[in-house]
Amino acid sequence: MTISPGPSVDADPALGQAVKAADRAHVFHSWSAQSVIDPLAVAGAEGSYFWDFEGKRYLDFSSQLVNTNIGHQHPKVVAAIQEQAAKLCTFAPAFAIEARSEAARLIAERTPGDLDKIFFTNGGAEANENAIRMARLHTGRQKVLSTYRSYHGATANAIALTGDPRRWQNEIGVSGVVHFWGPYPYRSNFHAGNEAQECERALAHLEQVIAFEGPQTVAAIILETVVGTAGILIPPAGYLAGVREICDRYGIVFILDEVMAGFGRTGEWFAADHWGVTPDLLTFAKGVNSGYVPLGGVAISGEIAATFAERPFPGGLTYSGHPLACASAVATINAMAEEGIVENAKHIGETVIGPELRAMAERHPSVGEVRGLGVFWAVELVKNRETREPITPYNAAGAANAPIAELAAECKKRGLWPFTNMNRFHVVPPCNVSESEVKEGLAILDEVLTLTDAHTV
Amino acid sequence: MTISPGPSVDADPALGQAVKAADRAHVFHSWSAQSVIDPLAVAGAEGSYFWDFEGKRYLDFSSQLVNTNIGHQHPKVVAAIQEQAAKLCTFAPAFAIEARSEAARLIAERTPGDLDKIFFTNGGAEANENAIRMARLHTGRQKVLSTYRSYHGATANAIALTGDPRRWQNEIGVSGVVHFWGPYPYRSNFHAGNEAQECERALAHLEQVIAFEGPQTVAAIILETVVGTAGILIPPAGYLAGVREICDRYGIVFILDEVMAGFGRTGEWFAADHWGVTPDLLTFAKGVNSGYVPLGGVAISGEIAATFAERPFPGGLTYSGHPLACASAVATINAMAEEGIVENAKHIGETVIGPELRAMAERHPSVGEVRGLGVFWAVELVKNRETREPITPYNAAGAANAPIAELAAECKKRGLWPFTNMNRFHVVPPCNVSESEVKEGLAILDEVLTLTDAHTV
Repeated sequence: MTISPGPSVDADPALGQAVKAADRAHVFHSWSAQSVIDPLAVAGAEGSYFWDFEGKRYLDFSSQLVNTNIGHQHPKVVAAIQEQAAKLCTFAPAFAIEARSEAARLIAERTPGDLDKIFFTNGGAEANENAIRMARLHTGRQKVLSTYRSYHGATANAIALTGDPRRWQNEIGVSGVVHFWGPYPYRSNFHAGNEAQECERALAHLEQVIAFEGPQTVAAIILETVVGTAGILIPPAGYLAGVREICDRYGIVFILDEVMAGFGRTGEWFAADHWGVTPDLLTFAKGVNSGYVPLGGVAISGEIAATFAERPFPGGLTYSGHPLACASAVATINAMAEEGIVENAKHIGETVIGPELRAMAERHPSVGEVRGLGVFWAVELVKNRETREPITPYNAAGAANAPIAELAAECKKRGLWPFTNMNRFHVVPPCNVSESEVKEGLAILDEVLTLTDAHTV
Repeated sequence: MTISPGPSVDADPALGQAVKAADRAHVFHSWSAQSVIDPLAVAGAEGSYFWDFEGKRYLDFSSQLVNTNIGHQHPKVVAAIQEQAAKLCTFAPAFAIEARSEAARLIAERTPGDLDKIFFTNGGAEANENAIRMARLHTGRQKVLSTYRSYHGATANAIALTGDPRRWQNEIGVSGVVHFWGPYPYRSNFHAGNEAQECERALAHLEQVIAFEGPQTVAAIILETVVGTAGILIPPAGYLAGVREICDRYGIVFILDEVMAGFGRTGEWFAADHWGVTPDLLTFAKGVNSGYVPLGGVAISGEIAATFAERPFPGGLTYSGHPLACASAVATINAMAEEGIVENAKHIGETVIGPELRAMAERHPSVGEVRGLGVFWAVELVKNRETREPITPYNAAGAANAPIAELAAECKKRGLWPFTNMNRFHVVPPCNVSESEVKEGLAILDEVLTLTDAHTV
């Protein structure tokens, strides 16, 4: 089974080859060995699909890097960018600009609690950088606690917060970050037998880490509300409220990183809405404007904003509150509201992705667990369901990664663009994906999982 | 004297008040005490001018944050953004994309030497973050040498590289950065009597710092080719070649930060072109696309790129090589080439700004020194020309900063938007500013300098 052909697009293989040749000559790619990669040249995209220069079409089950929450080339956002471009592309952060004011207002209207002041950045890493800066200055303390299994960005402090292998080589010249273990019922670090026990023991572990680090030295705890790339780990009921209570007790700033989970991905505007928890700082990027123009930011509580009422905030960037980026956020948020895109994500998760993945888990012995919310799902693949041994070792490369590499290659061959990480396949289509599109992709996945089944023992 | 009225624009004070009110309610501003600032609400901009909602017009002698090298709303770049928006706004870094390939090719064509691979970021801070990452991994060493009087960005490693007061409060949790003194003939740290001596002694100082830090521990030396915000400090002849030679001798990576100085600002495509020096890494942002869409990057030598041929580069970001940003860079670079904008910057500097500022220096006792290249000039203000005591102390605020605050306020009143820093006024209009526009602004500055003259002793 492959993706349906869809509307035909003009193929232009010669242009594709030229684009590829210039890429190989001059573009240095993220997270890659430069002479090993073979980037696909992409000609165009629309909604949940994109196509290459041969005219081959792909269903985007990755939302790129889990950012195109409203799909590719949403006409309202494209029009807003064109209009703002005609009006005012760029202006320095010190001024008041209509698109900037309106984006801040629309975001503040949706963030939980009193997170009503918005500091804009160019992306998620800088959002976390500035949240940490605010927390340290607000508390006068240095340490920041983050979890293993997390990703908070690649600038040098943000990468130190990161709990996946991308941190290892970057651990030079930074300090003050302590990694602890978050809840993960399927692979409990606390030998818990159920979710309630996992929650209780994870909170006790965090309490103990704080006690031994010294509460008066801890500026902030930063968590992805739902851990993203590191596994789509949904906090057990009570966990976030428990962390909130610990932070309040010790005067620690609670930061929720919603760069990936925010703006509809989990079927709510913010993932924190699922548990009714309000952090002191909430960071965002990606879904705020689906990445149509680089944008990120920090939503700030009244108390922390007050710290910088008379005292200058010592952070900034040339493009903070960039007019073109802010105009695209305004159009994105309005389109999501008008078209019920957040509700669609919730509905698709509850009625299609969840049930279908759970049914697949019964058919495929390589599926250890499926978990998710909205359009944010992980399929965790194992060698054996009893032992739960991952189908590939942690941070595997080369031959050790073969089961996942085969799965991804076969998906691409059939026109399904996958998102894989470690021993997992993530199902992360746009929030406005249709039921039939999702079903088309899941049917392919169902067939392809026979490849990983062959690796079970 | 005030700015000429220019074409009339529609005033809309009510909208201006609404924009300002939403800004004050929801926008958290860079580098500011939030309740002290009073941001001007800006309605529109074109070329070298912008205007507020009252219809008041300003000549932009700041190029915002020294980034709008092609002025506001250049029609070719606006059109390119609109066209790319219609085609493909965003796509993940792992793919080959036409605008990305073409931007990389056009930049590589202009960078010095063999800096032919381009890693794209969202701005200058991330460009420096990634350059440092490359240098450390390439050398296997940790320390980075940068100068006092420098600005390299505000993420936590980049801010540690910074040599102005914005670093002080951010110096938490970072290490491995050593600050040394660069050349600055007007305020020599080396008691030099002339430029040649300053150069020689500055190089000897750098040699000694390296000797005492241990050459085998130093990964990189990073310099702004022409120091920007910290004073528009032009390296004496021979200095950059001397640093290049030191780096070669010790196997140290030489990084030139051209975020502010690059893309025409100094009257050459890159400031390094003035001295024929090729670094191992060159970082850029701002002028590459005049900031119409957030974009920055690192141009990488063949030798350093080879380090990451088989070994994955452990850095990246969601919007690396963002299609909309890259398309605006392609249009900007092509417009600059077609319209001779770099040549214009050189011509304006040599025939108007330089001569006029030097003439003003003779008339105004508060002018200690004028220096610059292209459209990148500093007027250094002093209490007394003999003692060279700055007209305001280092990092002055409040009453101590009055002479500069008065100067800036009077410029704004007359419709000239200034760029001031410490005891300096920078003349940094767009690279395509016309002779008559520059003369109009300089004539106002000439009058306003009587205010600082009154503070001389």
